[in-house]
Amino acid sequence: MQKNILVAQSGGPSAAINATLAGVVLEGMRHEEIGNIYGALNGIQGVIERRLIDLKSQIKTDRQFKMLECTPSMALGSCRHKLPDYEKSPAVYEEIRKIFHEYGIGCFFYVGGNDSMDTALKLSEYFLAVNEDIRVIGLPKTIDNDLFGTDHTPGYGSAAKFIATAVAEIARDCDAYNLNSVTIVEIMGRNAGWLTAASVLPRAAGTEVPQLVYMPEVEFSLEGFLEDVRRLHAVRHTVVIAVSEGIRFADGRYVSQSEQSDHVDAFGHRYLSGAGKLLERQVANKIGCKVRSVELNILQRCSSHILSATDINEARRIGQFAVRFALQGQTGVMAGLKRISDAPYICDVVTVPIREVAGLERGFPKEWIAPSGNNLTDDVFCYLLPLIVGDVQPPTRNGIPEFFSFNKSVLSHT
Amino acid sequence: MQKNILVAQSGGPSAAINATLAGVVLEGMRHEEIGNIYGALNGIQGVIERRLIDLKSQIKTDRQFKMLECTPSMALGSCRHKLPDYEKSPAVYEEIRKIFHEYGIGCFFYVGGNDSMDTALKLSEYFLAVNEDIRVIGLPKTIDNDLFGTDHTPGYGSAAKFIATAVAEIARDCDAYNLNSVTIVEIMGRNAGWLTAASVLPRAAGTEVPQLVYMPEVEFSLEGFLEDVRRLHAVRHTVVIAVSEGIRFADGRYVSQSEQSDHVDAFGHRYLSGAGKLLERQVANKIGCKVRSVELNILQRCSSHILSATDINEARRIGQFAVRFALQGQTGVMAGLKRISDAPYICDVVTVPIREVAGLERGFPKEWIAPSGNNLTDDVFCYLLPLIVGDVQPPTRNGIPEFFSFNKSVLSHT
Repeated sequence: MQKNILVAQSGGPSAAINATLAGVVLEGMRHEEIGNIYGALNGIQGVIERRLIDLKSQIKTDRQFKMLECTPSMALGSCRHKLPDYEKSPAVYEEIRKIFHEYGIGCFFYVGGNDSMDTALKLSEYFLAVNEDIRVIGLPKTIDNDLFGTDHTPGYGSAAKFIATAVAEIARDCDAYNLNSVTIVEIMGRNAGWLTAASVLPRAAGTEVPQLVYMPEVEFSLEGFLEDVRRLHAVRHTVVIAVSEGIRFADGRYVSQSEQSDHVDAFGHRYLSGAGKLLERQVANKIGCKVRSVELNILQRCSSHILSATDINEARRIGQFAVRFALQGQTGVMAGLKRISDAPYICDVVTVPIREVAGLERGFPKEWIAPSGNNLTDDVFCYLLPLIVGDVQPPTRNGIPEFFSFNKSVLSHT
Repeated sequence: MQKNILVAQSGGPSAAINATLAGVVLEGMRHEEIGNIYGALNGIQGVIERRLIDLKSQIKTDRQFKMLECTPSMALGSCRHKLPDYEKSPAVYEEIRKIFHEYGIGCFFYVGGNDSMDTALKLSEYFLAVNEDIRVIGLPKTIDNDLFGTDHTPGYGSAAKFIATAVAEIARDCDAYNLNSVTIVEIMGRNAGWLTAASVLPRAAGTEVPQLVYMPEVEFSLEGFLEDVRRLHAVRHTVVIAVSEGIRFADGRYVSQSEQSDHVDAFGHRYLSGAGKLLERQVANKIGCKVRSVELNILQRCSSHILSATDINEARRIGQFAVRFALQGQTGVMAGLKRISDAPYICDVVTVPIREVAGLERGFPKEWIAPSGNNLTDDVFCYLLPLIVGDVQPPTRNGIPEFFSFNKSVLSHT
């Protein structure tokens, strides 16, 4: 008997998350066992609110698939809705079960980061507990690259490519004048320095930038920072610095704390911004040279015009494999990436029990940080370089990227 | 008798300025009348300091030319040096004349914005006054697009393409959640809204963003701005706003004034930043929805990974034509672009007496601003769309842009 499948997206945007969605739809269309392919709008919240749309009728042509793959941010919409524990709110789970029955859902695919894996885990355990054959697969997505159980996360490679390119370009911009200057590039990544680490990739294209890298894994010292800059100015005009938004002082306070906004999301995460601005003012006051800080900001997660082909291909493959895993009867697993070798770069899609990975943050390897604490070792290149390989030409109209938009008219169902 | 030529770059960086340099070198190599091709490091300052390098020996292969063309910011370095009036400092002019004699310079090409044209004008008039056959040609360059005597300036098209693409991407990023939000994109352009105008180009690819556009040409009202946002929130969740860094209140104060840094350059220009941040705080306090401001910052002028082929080709052609104009005996002219038609897009390179254009700012046409003052009319598309046509694939190494760097060992000469 045919089963329908349901896919939804959650968490923060990335440039590759729709390639995973495209992979689910593409693979779903290939199997006779699968009937309808539904998408829920705004993640698990849209499931609960019965805001489901039909996907097969909307993505048909190669160009539509390509457009969807190259469209940044969740085409189905996202949510930050945290599924409560079953013990506290059994009614929510029963409602979801009822909705899945109504729509004949046999497999649910949830694309997202750590918080979304938490939801996928809870749902899969609930269905097992009530002896319901509804399979739940988690599909990783986060530019932060901090998920456990996968070599890296889809979205990270494209973000890394944008960051590396932007740092290379900004470094050239800063080099135009014949005077001492400091340029501070502030990079996303609350707790792990994965994104900040990508800033060193320009060195693989013949540059020396950035000269200094401050990771959130290392206690930040303002005095040490100013000393680093002074030392470099003795031998060169231009100093380019990559700094994580999440750097903290020895006492645990974020450097950006004085610049912090009050916005706290549903998972208690605080929106950080301003480490670069604070360091900019420090350089201006204590060193007095030309100084500028640049926040790469949300382009890090949505710059679809500079995608990594490796990233997009892997994101799509994860979507495709997730469908196969579900059809094999697996549930409560995440489709993760397992690196077989660096050169040639080979990466397999494997399953990982979500229970083993949910809630854990995969930190940046301490041994890749130079003993000085203000730079990285060359080990990072073996890991990072394969992830940014290959260009993607996104569909454009009039020279502007043309994005895929779903008709979001919700299905009426009884 | 063979003459040597000298080229230098000045003013603020752009992504196309080295294509103009490449054009000068390319064309210079084709004429028997031209001997050596020198580049001065850091503009007119490098001329005065005799910091000249040989260019022909450094740019030989097609790949080198391509790399140079796709390298952002001045490959020869820039300066903000303002040439004093002859009456005040005749010695500087006599020194430059002496240096030009030493190096056998018959033509000087100065690539830059308004301030650089001022220098080119002064030098050309000095050489004419002292009956010296040294020709001086100005080559336009500025992302600001505010030079007189040219339909547009090289560098503007690529900046416009980056801005349009970034706004399209950011708009998708902001659309992921099912809640009211405001996203403010702050765009460069001190006095003229040319760059901010490029933000509407995503509408030519099937989107409606940005919903509001605040140009520096229109008096800014905080109350009007908040009212605009409230009105839009009545009919849609997500409001994307493009705002020029240079918007001012009715009394002439910059909106960013409270955020202004004290840095003033040699031409008395003040570095602006912060209009977006101020509006962000206003929305947070007065409307209370999710709000974020994004400063596109210096990537607007150095994002070589998303060049306009039209822009790069025109920048190169301007360099080539400048050499031909000089060989024809012209001096004191700028090589400008004259648009013949929009569709098909045809643009000629012509000469314009610098005297007629130096010191003037070409404002954004008032009639392209909607009567409401918070949007643009469709007229802007005819003008803008041809300028962003065509993609350029910059040379890369390991997936990272590979930039051209000159060996800056200065020539020793007697």
